[in-house]
Amino acid sequence: MAGNSIGQLFRVTTFGESHGPAIGGIVDGCPPGLHITAEELQQDLDRRKPGTSRYTTARREADEVKILSGVFEGISTGCSIGLLIENTDQRSQDYSKIKDVFRPGHADYTYWHKFGIRDYRGGGRSSARETAIRVAAGAIAKKYLKEKFGMEIRGYLAQLGPVAVDPVVMQKAHWDEVNNNPFFCPDPGKLEALDAYMRELKKAGDSVGARVNVVASRVPVGLGEPVFDRLDADIAHAMMSINAVKAVEIGDGFAVVEQNGSTHRDELTPQGFSANHAGGVLGGISSGQDIRVSIALKPTSSISIPGQSINVAGEPVEMLTKGRHDPCVGIRAVPIAEAMLAIVLMDHLLRHRAQNPDVVCHTPDIARLQDE
Amino acid sequence: MAGNSIGQLFRVTTFGESHGPAIGGIVDGCPPGLHITAEELQQDLDRRKPGTSRYTTARREADEVKILSGVFEGISTGCSIGLLIENTDQRSQDYSKIKDVFRPGHADYTYWHKFGIRDYRGGGRSSARETAIRVAAGAIAKKYLKEKFGMEIRGYLAQLGPVAVDPVVMQKAHWDEVNNNPFFCPDPGKLEALDAYMRELKKAGDSVGARVNVVASRVPVGLGEPVFDRLDADIAHAMMSINAVKAVEIGDGFAVVEQNGSTHRDELTPQGFSANHAGGVLGGISSGQDIRVSIALKPTSSISIPGQSINVAGEPVEMLTKGRHDPCVGIRAVPIAEAMLAIVLMDHLLRHRAQNPDVVCHTPDIARLQDE
Amino acid sequence: MAGNSIGQLFRVTTFGESHGPAIGGIVDGCPPGLHITAEELQQDLDRRKPGTSRYTTARREADEVKILSGVFEGISTGCSIGLLIENTDQRSQDYSKIKDVFRPGHADYTYWHKFGIRDYRGGGRSSARETAIRVAAGAIAKKYLKEKFGMEIRGYLAQLGPVAVDPVVMQKAHWDEVNNNPFFCPDPGKLEALDAYMRELKKAGDSVGARVNVVASRVPVGLGEPVFDRLDADIAHAMMSINAVKAVEIGDGFAVVEQNGSTHRDELTPQGFSANHAGGVLGGISSGQDIRVSIALKPTSSISIPGQSINVAGEPVEMLTKGRHDPCVGIRAVPIAEAMLAIVLMDHLLRHRAQNPDVVCHTPDIARLQDE
Amino acid sequence: MAGNSIGQLFRVTTFGESHGPAIGGIVDGCPPGLHITAEELQQDLDRRKPGTSRYTTARREADEVKILSGVFEGISTGCSIGLLIENTDQRSQDYSKIKDVFRPGHADYTYWHKFGIRDYRGGGRSSARETAIRVAAGAIAKKYLKEKFGMEIRGYLAQLGPVAVDPVVMQKAHWDEVNNNPFFCPDPGKLEALDAYMRELKKAGDSVGARVNVVASRVPVGLGEPVFDRLDADIAHAMMSINAVKAVEIGDGFAVVEQNGSTHRDELTPQGFSANHAGGVLGGISSGQDIRVSIALKPTSSISIPGQSINVAGEPVEMLTKGRHDPCVGIRAVPIAEAMLAIVLMDHLLRHRAQNPDVVCHTPDIARLQDE
Repeated sequence: MAGNSIGQLFRVTTFGESHGPAIGGIVDGCPPGLHITAEELQQDLDRRKPGTSRYTTARREADEVKILSGVFEGISTGCSIGLLIENTDQRSQDYSKIKDVFRPGHADYTYWHKFGIRDYRGGGRSSARETAIRVAAGAIAKKYLKEKFGMEIRGYLAQLGPVAVDPVVMQKAHWDEVNNNPFFCPDPGKLEALDAYMRELKKAGDSVGARVNVVASRVPVGLGEPVFDRLDADIAHAMMSINAVKAVEIGDGFAVVEQNGSTHRDELTPQGFSANHAGGVLGGISSGQDIRVSIALKPTSSISIPGQSINVAGEPVEMLTKGRHDPCVGIRAVPIAEAMLAIVLMDHLLRHRAQNPDVVCHTPDIARLQDE
Repeated sequence: MAGNSIGQLFRVTTFGESHGPAIGGIVDGCPPGLHITAEELQQDLDRRKPGTSRYTTARREADEVKILSGVFEGISTGCSIGLLIENTDQRSQDYSKIKDVFRPGHADYTYWHKFGIRDYRGGGRSSARETAIRVAAGAIAKKYLKEKFGMEIRGYLAQLGPVAVDPVVMQKAHWDEVNNNPFFCPDPGKLEALDAYMRELKKAGDSVGARVNVVASRVPVGLGEPVFDRLDADIAHAMMSINAVKAVEIGDGFAVVEQNGSTHRDELTPQGFSANHAGGVLGGISSGQDIRVSIALKPTSSISIPGQSINVAGEPVEMLTKGRHDPCVGIRAVPIAEAMLAIVLMDHLLRHRAQNPDVVCHTPDIARLQDE
Repeated sequence: MAGNSIGQLFRVTTFGESHGPAIGGIVDGCPPGLHITAEELQQDLDRRKPGTSRYTTARREADEVKILSGVFEGISTGCSIGLLIENTDQRSQDYSKIKDVFRPGHADYTYWHKFGIRDYRGGGRSSARETAIRVAAGAIAKKYLKEKFGMEIRGYLAQLGPVAVDPVVMQKAHWDEVNNNPFFCPDPGKLEALDAYMRELKKAGDSVGARVNVVASRVPVGLGEPVFDRLDADIAHAMMSINAVKAVEIGDGFAVVEQNGSTHRDELTPQGFSANHAGGVLGGISSGQDIRVSIALKPTSSISIPGQSINVAGEPVEMLTKGRHDPCVGIRAVPIAEAMLAIVLMDHLLRHRAQNPDVVCHTPDIARLQDE
Repeated sequence: MAGNSIGQLFRVTTFGESHGPAIGGIVDGCPPGLHITAEELQQDLDRRKPGTSRYTTARREADEVKILSGVFEGISTGCSIGLLIENTDQRSQDYSKIKDVFRPGHADYTYWHKFGIRDYRGGGRSSARETAIRVAAGAIAKKYLKEKFGMEIRGYLAQLGPVAVDPVVMQKAHWDEVNNNPFFCPDPGKLEALDAYMRELKKAGDSVGARVNVVASRVPVGLGEPVFDRLDADIAHAMMSINAVKAVEIGDGFAVVEQNGSTHRDELTPQGFSANHAGGVLGGISSGQDIRVSIALKPTSSISIPGQSINVAGEPVEMLTKGRHDPCVGIRAVPIAEAMLAIVLMDHLLRHRAQNPDVVCHTPDIARLQDE
């Protein structure tokens, strides 16, 4: 049934397969009066785009987004915004061999059994190509949140296989560095290790997982609804909906298992919170502190090392993926994760404002100092 | 705005505060023809109930659930099912001292800023007492899934502070043990360590976090929708909506960060999957293997060690929680996590069936052998 | 599947059967800070209550509503509001004879075929008893809209069988009269005719249809969303969801079929609209003029004149309804229709405010003068 | 906020303005395995297309729909279907004069006050041009319902201004006639009168309203959910969401006001229902009889007779619409109303099937004979 939408008040719906004529989407609920151009959306799309470095897939997608509606003379009208990215690089012949076989670790097996039919070209609907529209939609949300509330939503690569960035409270210099290298890595000291590791990986024809962190700063207090539609629950949903994501943490995440309450609780002072173990969410509602999210992305299963699988007749086959693929899909997930966090925050901002027209952008000082 | 519902086709909506006259809920979308009695729901409620052991809060909640509608002569009618649990143990006087102060680590601060008013008695709506209705609703889902598809949805305590259960593929003997001890621990060899640790913790007046694992077995292939309403995304949402949960993993979770694709991809053979790193979900759709979920619960902030906080006027106060509280809320989360997983699977079963009336319960052999 | 909820941001979900232990509901999305007491809700419930006059059913329902949550010390908290009405007058024995037969004109046949089971006592879930909770929920919406925006939402009986009230622009004197007689009739000159007609009808053992009009005044400009979630579309949905309603008009309704554009279009002047043929909605969005809605309610099929029907085995049976029933269910629909209009306006007010925090209560003068 | 979607399981979301580069939509929830081609969708689009006769607007819209996704090798895949219609006839210069004025009877005034900005070219988002995508989406639903259940969903013009078609139980010959003339009129004897009336109207520069009837045959018993999401309530919503619709009737509609219960109730016999006053819906659930819906469409306000209005500064202006417009928009509403009914029935079929995999297509004989 219908499952291609996210958000209640700021709702994004997408369509399109990896190798179809186009992918696209509808952003429904963008408030009127926001200045939007295709060029602005393109900036985030370009950060996600494959083919930008030797570390990501050599496949070239032009990924040029068009705004078809909802923006009049450069200003959002409050009506639904149609987005379209036409496919310019369709090479279906690469995929005809996998027509009847299930690639292990991919959605081939489950799509086949669910639908009884599948577009086998490049993963069809299950391809990460679909996330390009998320990034475009997220760029609209990001812009609104930045302009109206000064919010910043930024991500970085925290770990790639064995190469981990030392935990650090991200500051301006770190964020600047993130966009200066193809790994979205905040620590220039790690670039050489990352580069060396990726070379080895490519040579081995294998792939590797990654951890990506995303941080939202200057978030108003009060976003999120009690019980089920908590802000953190909706963030978890949005993050886990990204291709290859297998885990989500808010704040200290799994580290809380071994923490004591006396350590974990973020004490309050007249100057603000004294720490941010909670990751900016208490009782499912934003506290005004930075929202801290961390996600794990699995290694892509498209590798050039042979593996066992079966075909639709249930017979054994040997699989070996040729073609153009990222050895670490996690790297490109940085702008996607930012987009998803922006979409959730935008949705909850509107939901909050429905009841409380006066949204207070109250961010306690201590937390800000600590987190920035 | 409205945020107290979960599910699209099997939808649970709840109401009620910790110290109000009653909590309750509506289960909308239960198929007709299911035999349901209040006694059956009570069994799961009793597993969650505080006051059952010396490790959980001494507070006694009768938690007796009544079915007010939707069941006629013991059979579900397809109409909405009203559930009610009246409060029998209201001691509001315990809470009057915290009326104007924000307990650190609790939702007091965020509810106050979001709503400008809060029911300060026992956490009001943010109290975990609300989860009793989730457990009752989940018991309905569990029963349907068991009767119609043979599905089992079971949880256990995987770690409590420093005491971790050794990773094991859960088999019948383990599951039997889980319900034989107050910790929901599958390993009897750990009971002494758990007991000793909890005694120390109580003496120190502190609390600790926990990790809970939940497993769904005999899940049909094909549950979950592409892109946003993926099965794993909806599971992440449901789990993160449980009070105190800070992290969610599907399958190998964060371990995938350091895995290679050649290791992670679960190869397929004519006899089934050869491993289950994915945790039973590929491309957001169930593969027929066991669904494996792991969650982290933070230590409760209600401890008897003094902490700094502020009152509604922004003045500093010293907090010290008296009253009856769990030193480890994670223990009681086991039946709650089972309920949430059951609700999500039930919802997706109905969603899948809307398009594909013939739901196939296809569970590949190897995976079953491995997981059981 | 789930179908017992209405509204997106102000969402009402109900449960309960005619002869079950209780009916109830959850109001999710009520803004915090509204003063609410059960007594206030009771006032509208008492207007709907059967047994208040000799024209409506002699069945006595105490219909005493309890607020179980979401209101703290008399003030709404922003959390879900639980409502409960316990049944005090259960006489199931009256209905045992119809256990296996389908009453013509009722939902017996369709519920049986849809669900394969039905609570045959008094119509079960299909009974109009369920609307009591709508009236209570609507009273909350009405109060908020009145307090914050001065909105008035009021209905009256426009026609009962052959007795029609002359069309009139309702003014204060008319509205006062509406609540002075058991017919909700604005014209005291019609009371004798109504009374005489109803006596005849009762003697004949038959029933009759009715037309009810509802008017919302001082509605802000801008409520309603483009395309599908138009204000008038949502009003049509809400009205048609009331038991026995078979038709809905906005503004001039079916009269537009024979109108010319030069007549229908409500011209604009600097002082406001010069007419209100549109009924306060243009392009699905409120214009600030009075919202005018008219609905038709069918005659109840529960009459003491025998009729042909069949039983569950498909065999012919003769039906004759005994028991306590309204000869004109349309009369009692007045407070129900008000409640539904209030719920829709409340929902759209919140939806509008999510995008436009500054809701302008702009009601052009001319229209106001004309409509009041 | 988001308001551009309709349906729960079969969900249609649209975008696009009258004079933008394109309009489009996403059909989410179409079951897999349905054969769909753009040519088939085009057939219904061509029935709606302006410029097909001298009675409708001379404006030429190519209205050529493209399927961008969700269909693979001519078969639906179960994934979201992207639809696109590029605008080929953009003449924005026609509209620049109305930039700052509100055309009476149009949505100009309400869009301006709601959003503070509007695309004034041809009505922008409020233009009926958007309904082209509804027709394409409805064609998909129609085809599925026809292929799987034999359902027919057909509409006709019942009245145009003073020219009314005599009420008749539509039979094959009538339906054949409907598609043989540009009025969608089932009675060839009325064509001359319609033609004469329209010529007069054009000469006068005025417009007129219309009544359109839609009938769905061979509808399975059991579609529709209790209480709020009734089939008739959702039909009312869908119909009232069509531009210019001001009223909706199910079955006998407003005629029930003067009916007695002994007349209205459709008695049951072993051979089926003996009449269909209810219009195929009892208690909000389909009875298996024909669904009978009737709607009123207002006369367009775009006429060449001058009218009073104001501009955005509140100053009086005289309005006179030039350009290309239908004197009776109601005629073209026939395929749109069919599409909306198809979308609602498709949605409810899927909803019903979620709970009851075995949908019974049970249509009682007598009703069928009477209705066909």
